[in-house]
Amino acid sequence: MKKLMFIYGLLIMSFIVYVINYQTSKNDDNPWETTGGLRGSVDEKYVMVTFQSGIDYWKGVLKGFEDASEALNVSVEYRGATKYDLQEQITVLEQVIAKRPAGIALTAINPEALNPTINKAIKEGIPVVLFDSGTTESKAYSLLATDNYRAGVIAARTMGDLTGGEGDVAVLYQPHQMNLEDRTRGFKDTIRTEFPNMEVVAVVDAKAQRTTSHDVTMQLVEKYPNLRGIFITEANGGVGVGDAIQSLGNEKVKIVSFDTDKGTLDMVKDGRIDATMAQGTWSMGYWSLQFLFHMKHELVQAANWQTTTMSPLPVQVDTGINVVTRQNVDEYYAK
Amino acid sequence: MKKLMFIYGLLIMSFIVYVINYQTSKNDDNPWETTGGLRGSVDEKYVMVTFQSGIDYWKGVLKGFEDASEALNVSVEYRGATKYDLQEQITVLEQVIAKRPAGIALTAINPEALNPTINKAIKEGIPVVLFDSGTTESKAYSLLATDNYRAGVIAARTMGDLTGGEGDVAVLYQPHQMNLEDRTRGFKDTIRTEFPNMEVVAVVDAKAQRTTSHDVTMQLVEKYPNLRGIFITEANGGVGVGDAIQSLGNEKVKIVSFDTDKGTLDMVKDGRIDATMAQGTWSMGYWSLQFLFHMKHELVQAANWQTTTMSPLPVQVDTGINVVTRQNVDEYYAK
Repeated sequence: MKKLMFIYGLLIMSFIVYVINYQTSKNDDNPWETTGGLRGSVDEKYVMVTFQSGIDYWKGVLKGFEDASEALNVSVEYRGATKYDLQEQITVLEQVIAKRPAGIALTAINPEALNPTINKAIKEGIPVVLFDSGTTESKAYSLLATDNYRAGVIAARTMGDLTGGEGDVAVLYQPHQMNLEDRTRGFKDTIRTEFPNMEVVAVVDAKAQRTTSHDVTMQLVEKYPNLRGIFITEANGGVGVGDAIQSLGNEKVKIVSFDTDKGTLDMVKDGRIDATMAQGTWSMGYWSLQFLFHMKHELVQAANWQTTTMSPLPVQVDTGINVVTRQNVDEYYAK
Repeated sequence: MKKLMFIYGLLIMSFIVYVINYQTSKNDDNPWETTGGLRGSVDEKYVMVTFQSGIDYWKGVLKGFEDASEALNVSVEYRGATKYDLQEQITVLEQVIAKRPAGIALTAINPEALNPTINKAIKEGIPVVLFDSGTTESKAYSLLATDNYRAGVIAARTMGDLTGGEGDVAVLYQPHQMNLEDRTRGFKDTIRTEFPNMEVVAVVDAKAQRTTSHDVTMQLVEKYPNLRGIFITEANGGVGVGDAIQSLGNEKVKIVSFDTDKGTLDMVKDGRIDATMAQGTWSMGYWSLQFLFHMKHELVQAANWQTTTMSPLPVQVDTGINVVTRQNVDEYYAK
């Protein structure tokens, strides 16, 4: 019996040693600063703020934002103006700032009007980065977006390939929207400089709407008998143009559209749209959160980012453009 | 005694439960995928490859690269061609590839000649990103660098401020080096479009050397009596220009230089150079390693990056330019 008691005693001793060991190892694991590894805490909340918050386009960005938050063990929240409404977005942004989040990733409905609110957040110590649509002169630390001029260049080269570099082409856009103007300019410059046998014969306001785009296309085909291509600079118009060209049974006019909403991808898949330009939306969201996390944890070029004259983060990130055709369309459906 | 045995039994039971709990929690803690937190392993080695590997300029980049490796708990190695020698850089890059590292961050001595070697690395499954100097058509996934045209724009505006927007200015550069050509172009375009009372009267090859820059400056001052400013597009010349202008006792000619080596900063501090352009070298190194880590761990826009048509990473990152003057020069000395 005594022998048994002794063994029990030993077991209990080792139990105690084990517990101490466990507690110590627990303490080692927790603070990310000492063990290496980037890890935040779940009460660290980063907020993504949009306008027209319900549209499909933001889902890809939010997926990237969420994936980064999982990787870094922090929390995220999605907010936005429900409509295309400057005042509503300012109000939403003010509400977000009032809750003092760990950081804000914002897409700006307007390149100037949000600057005072953005600068207020930064003055209060909340890091702000911009994605997709930037501002001219705010104090936000970085812009993660498509280089829209370059997107137009790539669209023009795609159109050149599709048409064999011959014939008239038209552009559908919406005036006074900087990204669409830039895409149009990149497209026109490239057709002029790289395709001597092609000409941009019309740049038309299609109001970023499916039905208007349909009607405009019918008029263009009638007016320009040598029309061989249409470039649509935003997501809504492509489907309208695809409908119109199909209803005419016209196989001469090639269609290059923009973005990867399901309607557009379906038309790429069945051949009604020849190509569409995919933006790096996941990258915008993922690297926005990474940048904010690094600001929050002062792991940037200038740790004292509130007082330094040095840029703490890369000032501009081009998330890239990929050309989607029937061959690779399956990769681009949302997972 | 029976009671005691019972208590011991209970203790041993809880011991077993505790051990199981510990083992489970251990399994939870280790793989970074499940607990959140980005953490690699020390046997994961990332290599930074340069040319003229001994120059000061790379130290800032390497510091960023090392800081990221500490944050992510991975290893880094620094390699480079010791001279400005294409063949030597190709050899070094081949040696690095042969060791099958987790990723390679490369600055390219030449925009084309390294492409076959870069593409070979990628074919073998080693992610490659470029920093500082890119390539035209390689398969590398991203370029993290200064927007050199924009650096020239900022240099011109700085010069405009210093001279009150009046007088002749000259540029010192070295031909056939893309970054210096871009800076020169940005400078000339901006002087022409934004400063009607200024004129770029000379763009001179100063061979990126201190002595040549000194001599060229003496000639320029003699030839152009209305000379009010000199922009030096690279790091070595600024000190030579500062010497020359000081030896002449000429206070009318303002000097805008490039980079933040100690010699240049010292001259900014004592007023012999009026301003210099600081590049985001730390950011180049830090985010290069982050990008490579994310490729290695397939935490990118397209996890199947070896087969997809989608850009896994942002294609281009502008790490920014900051203007250094006497007021903020202390921030820019290496820590």
